[in-house]
Amino acid sequence: MAVYTSVPAEALEQFLAGYETGPLVSAKGIAEGVSNSNFLVETTTGRFILTLYERRIDLAELPYFIGLMDHLADSGLPVPRPVRDRDGNALQIVEGKAACLIEFLPGVSVSRPSTEQARAAGAALAQMHVAGADFTPVRANGLALPWWRQTASELAPRLDEIAPGLQAKVATRLEAVATSWPTDLPKGTIHADLFPDNVLMLGSRVTGLIDFYFACTDVLAYDLAVLHAAWAFAPDGSAPLPEHEAALFEGYEAVRPLSAAERQAFPVLAQGAALRFLLSRAQDWLAPHSGALVQRKDPLPFARRLDHYARLA
Amino acid sequence: MAVYTSVPAEALEQFLAGYETGPLVSAKGIAEGVSNSNFLVETTTGRFILTLYERRIDLAELPYFIGLMDHLADSGLPVPRPVRDRDGNALQIVEGKAACLIEFLPGVSVSRPSTEQARAAGAALAQMHVAGADFTPVRANGLALPWWRQTASELAPRLDEIAPGLQAKVATRLEAVATSWPTDLPKGTIHADLFPDNVLMLGSRVTGLIDFYFACTDVLAYDLAVLHAAWAFAPDGSAPLPEHEAALFEGYEAVRPLSAAERQAFPVLAQGAALRFLLSRAQDWLAPHSGALVQRKDPLPFARRLDHYARLA
Repeated sequence: MAVYTSVPAEALEQFLAGYETGPLVSAKGIAEGVSNSNFLVETTTGRFILTLYERRIDLAELPYFIGLMDHLADSGLPVPRPVRDRDGNALQIVEGKAACLIEFLPGVSVSRPSTEQARAAGAALAQMHVAGADFTPVRANGLALPWWRQTASELAPRLDEIAPGLQAKVATRLEAVATSWPTDLPKGTIHADLFPDNVLMLGSRVTGLIDFYFACTDVLAYDLAVLHAAWAFAPDGSAPLPEHEAALFEGYEAVRPLSAAERQAFPVLAQGAALRFLLSRAQDWLAPHSGALVQRKDPLPFARRLDHYARLA
Repeated sequence: MAVYTSVPAEALEQFLAGYETGPLVSAKGIAEGVSNSNFLVETTTGRFILTLYERRIDLAELPYFIGLMDHLADSGLPVPRPVRDRDGNALQIVEGKAACLIEFLPGVSVSRPSTEQARAAGAALAQMHVAGADFTPVRANGLALPWWRQTASELAPRLDEIAPGLQAKVATRLEAVATSWPTDLPKGTIHADLFPDNVLMLGSRVTGLIDFYFACTDVLAYDLAVLHAAWAFAPDGSAPLPEHEAALFEGYEAVRPLSAAERQAFPVLAQGAALRFLLSRAQDWLAPHSGALVQRKDPLPFARRLDHYARLA
């Protein structure tokens, strides 16, 4: 969470002059997102989020993300709509960075979801999967099995610095997951990172699904496994929350029932999800100079989730 | 600029239940302030800034700052008003930190003020000085001559790491300033840090004076010298801006004319202001581990201002 690039008020005023938003009233850099800078911008006609894309994002992929947000918003999902300037363009350059002005949505990200909030998140994910069915652009999942393998291999010499035995655990689970990874489950557009941070809520109502910058084309039930890893555990990963688990599945299946094959594959998919976040966090944890601008997140809660899912398999 | 403490939405909802603000609608950590964490909080009835006091602030002094904001807002100045809870308290504890919910004010901080904006800032500072005349609490300026002396002495062995000759320059100017520092100029409540960041504007209208956490009782014309150092130079400190200087003085004197003694003392007061920011920036610059969370600001632009003011004396 950081603001990497400062945008002078004068530059923002000039930028907004290209839009029908009316003039600037207020602008605050907000501590949201780790790969970009975000500003909460108010004009005489409304509020917006201005995102500057900083790192980890391939600019050539921005049209995919913008198209997806448009498509999901058109489908009635609470997804923030990229705003077009007077010439119809959503993508801009601000202070030398690719940028997009995006609709502001109300709601807060909960830290300890209730079961009703978990149910609503499950339903929202399923709605996204249904609405994504006729979104035709395709984007490969850059953080799937080949990336897990490569990252586990790169980090192997140092994983035990995080916890003794972690390297062996990752290697064992990775091979188990690779061997039994399902190849015939329904694929579609997935969010791939629907943690509570990325869901805005008012009470138990989902008012926003945000941060689509990991979205890609992959196994739909894998996205539910990510949701499970994110919502169905105590924060340290030690205790699965059975009522939250039940609520996530009930919410999801009320909109999109799972097939028997998807249910059966769940423990493998969930181990994959745990590996994905374990490895990306381990990468940040072990990176030189990490922590300077971005809060490092502890990888170990995902090692505990991995253990839990391995016991189910 | 940072958010040091995260406040879970659940904790924020519980906190707001003590107020007449209505329930939470949105909350974003904002990248504002270096000594505290700030959140832009929206409820069903309005918007607010929630400040958590983190560092560099003596908690026993918070009632002074809150009383001053109240007093200035009561006097009609665009100063954000601390909000009282149902029991009449402005100071609270949130996530273990002293905290205050404060009125949200519109406007943006300009990066390169126009002369009209400089004129408006000068007038706003004078209005603050006039309105502060009947604010009776007193707070010593912790960053005045004794602090400059002590800090210059502590940093002496390392100042030349920033620029060759800086240590000698600081020592020379410090003795010149100490010798001629005025003792009989009007004192009162000063802001002591009215940089463009701390002034919200819409066009050339001042809509907010913020960040009173350096406010204290000191020479009024010194506050104008701080304003001059902050608003009347190109950002690198190399070129004074004569039109901005004229506008600052005109704006100030339209509200509170300076005495001959205040005018005469200006070059000394301004050297003091340049030393104060030069030394606090040098302290941050040379501190171990600085830059981790707070953006370090270059001290040298204030060394250039110091040269400029010394030539006037």
